[in-house]
Amino acid sequence: MLYDEVIVQTIRVETPSAKYDVFAGSGLLAELAPRIERAVKRLPRRVFVVTSPEIWALWGKKFLRSFHEMAGEARGRQENFEAPVALFLPPGEQHKTVKSVERLLREMVKAGGDRGSLLIAFGGGIVGDVGGFVAATFMRGINYVQVPTTFLAQVDSSVGGKVGVNLPEGKNLVGNFLQPRAVFADIGVLGTLPDRELHAGLMESVKAGFIRDRALVRFMEEHSEEILAREPKALEKVIAASIRMKAEVVRKDERENGLRMILNFGHTVGHALEQATKYKAMLHGEAVAWGMVATLAVARRRGTITGGQMERMEKLIYRYGPLPKLKVTAARVMAATGRDKKNVGGVRRFVLPVGIGDAGVVEDVSVAELEAGVRYMLVRSRTAFKG
Amino acid sequence: MLYDEVIVQTIRVETPSAKYDVFAGSGLLAELAPRIERAVKRLPRRVFVVTSPEIWALWGKKFLRSFHEMAGEARGRQENFEAPVALFLPPGEQHKTVKSVERLLREMVKAGGDRGSLLIAFGGGIVGDVGGFVAATFMRGINYVQVPTTFLAQVDSSVGGKVGVNLPEGKNLVGNFLQPRAVFADIGVLGTLPDRELHAGLMESVKAGFIRDRALVRFMEEHSEEILAREPKALEKVIAASIRMKAEVVRKDERENGLRMILNFGHTVGHALEQATKYKAMLHGEAVAWGMVATLAVARRRGTITGGQMERMEKLIYRYGPLPKLKVTAARVMAATGRDKKNVGGVRRFVLPVGIGDAGVVEDVSVAELEAGVRYMLVRSRTAFKG
Repeated sequence: MLYDEVIVQTIRVETPSAKYDVFAGSGLLAELAPRIERAVKRLPRRVFVVTSPEIWALWGKKFLRSFHEMAGEARGRQENFEAPVALFLPPGEQHKTVKSVERLLREMVKAGGDRGSLLIAFGGGIVGDVGGFVAATFMRGINYVQVPTTFLAQVDSSVGGKVGVNLPEGKNLVGNFLQPRAVFADIGVLGTLPDRELHAGLMESVKAGFIRDRALVRFMEEHSEEILAREPKALEKVIAASIRMKAEVVRKDERENGLRMILNFGHTVGHALEQATKYKAMLHGEAVAWGMVATLAVARRRGTITGGQMERMEKLIYRYGPLPKLKVTAARVMAATGRDKKNVGGVRRFVLPVGIGDAGVVEDVSVAELEAGVRYMLVRSRTAFKG
Repeated sequence: MLYDEVIVQTIRVETPSAKYDVFAGSGLLAELAPRIERAVKRLPRRVFVVTSPEIWALWGKKFLRSFHEMAGEARGRQENFEAPVALFLPPGEQHKTVKSVERLLREMVKAGGDRGSLLIAFGGGIVGDVGGFVAATFMRGINYVQVPTTFLAQVDSSVGGKVGVNLPEGKNLVGNFLQPRAVFADIGVLGTLPDRELHAGLMESVKAGFIRDRALVRFMEEHSEEILAREPKALEKVIAASIRMKAEVVRKDERENGLRMILNFGHTVGHALEQATKYKAMLHGEAVAWGMVATLAVARRRGTITGGQMERMEKLIYRYGPLPKLKVTAARVMAATGRDKKNVGGVRRFVLPVGIGDAGVVEDVSVAELEAGVRYMLVRSRTAFKG
């Protein structure tokens, strides 16, 4: 089972608002145009690609090839299809803004976009979130597909329809829920991903295992060398398992009224860390990793995990490290958790692991409990990666 | 039937994404808090009112009264409900921008808004469109209700879930479809509406009659004096009929893939006029009125209406005038129609009346036909209100 021959895996996502496929495997980029056409029935005349300059420099030519072929065929048939128009979003959380969205929308109008146009988000999580939100709001919503190029985006943000941008007051405070028409996770493009980003992305797979998939936890424990060496079959296994977990949760709770909240395991403290360090000191996956460590400490004190389980879980997190040292105080982190948008009606909702492979949402975590968890995390940030 | 005693009429809107009631009548403002509570099950701790300074100065005190009573009761029951927080949008199309949306979103975060918060859009069409879009995007969407204060907003924009803002490139190019949880159209607040706005708003009722409701056309012909004198029962009749027409169309086609397009009767040229005059020379309803005149001329040439029908329809439009003189050239109007967002895939979709009380969408209106209609409209703008 583990190393069987798989080229492209298809994972079906079904929600009340949409049904679509996530494709994970190698060689997807080369077949993008016909695959997208199958997903949206008919490619419109105007296709937009929202991407980053870096990704486009590395993969733009390969990306465009299948579209150029299709445009050539369309000309042969006297049809009205043109090759995609690339629109750029500079890298970095500082560009995940309302202002960027407005600029992209205006560029689309100027380039002749209409309500039948299609948008392809081709890049990491930020490109996916911003591109998806542009698609959700352009002329009140057009079709879009996700072509994630980072591990994190492939296993997490490209699936589930959460799109949006940040406000100066906090992360992801503006957005929509809009499912893509398809997601294409090409493992081939991960070849140019920096090690640090791969490791940070793997933290979302660790999270997926912790909250919902014991077998994935075991696989990531036993095959960490192959995974970190980017052995395609090992990566594919982790990616497909992570997407499957997320698809199942999103199917049951598209709009995060209940179950979907468990996906935020580690994210309350993770978001606070990102905010307290102004999104500059660490990658999202790294912040979530530290957030999971803080959460494990809260869970241990409550007894929802044993000491042995905590040790095993922490070890797995650090196996996919190293994580950056934290240079913030507990007080700053605590202050930043106050604005987390999951705090419906002032209640502090919090996701706790229950053993390994399960998790639940509780509403009665006190400030003192959370602070103890944060303090444990800060101690571990000084000691976990010594020797 | 015509003058029977009616206090509040309830019109049910059912779409694939939502079911809700539109209430039209007198005295709704005084009972707002309990009525909204019934619609959303339970009022959250934090309620926001997006409104204009003018409307708030006129009606804010009355608006707040039922909420203060409810807050008092909640304190008695030790519950966590506070009176609404008012957020202001200055009047005018120039504030219907992405920038205003961002400012309102930030104010909501700072005032402690969360995913359970409720937004009430209390004002004219611009307040409704902007407020609704803020609700649709705040933390990926919160509940909202519409409390329209202009005739136009009551009969048209508050119902149907179209929300959004303009770009410098054109009107309503950014937005979402999100249905409100309820709409409260209080005829009482129309008392302070300037005559010109009432007349402009009545144009959407004229439109409603032309495309879908022959009986409404006849009522507006026969009772124009009572309507223009703001006789409550006559107004209520026109408002309820207009909303019913819109509710029926939206029920059949929420996202404007087909039938809903007929609501854009007169709007292709109307939007072009607004754009060509930078949204300053006329009200939306006035622009639509002139757009209908241009459209009638196109329809007459095609033979979808008779000469007698055209005369009768034009007469009804002018009965609810006067309309402002047009100071644009045919060339400018034509250029502005080129960017209308209904032009899917480059095809010029156009709504034509078929007799009185019916309409259809055609795709083959030529530039020459449209220009002839625009020229007719410009001639009528010089002659229709003489003597």
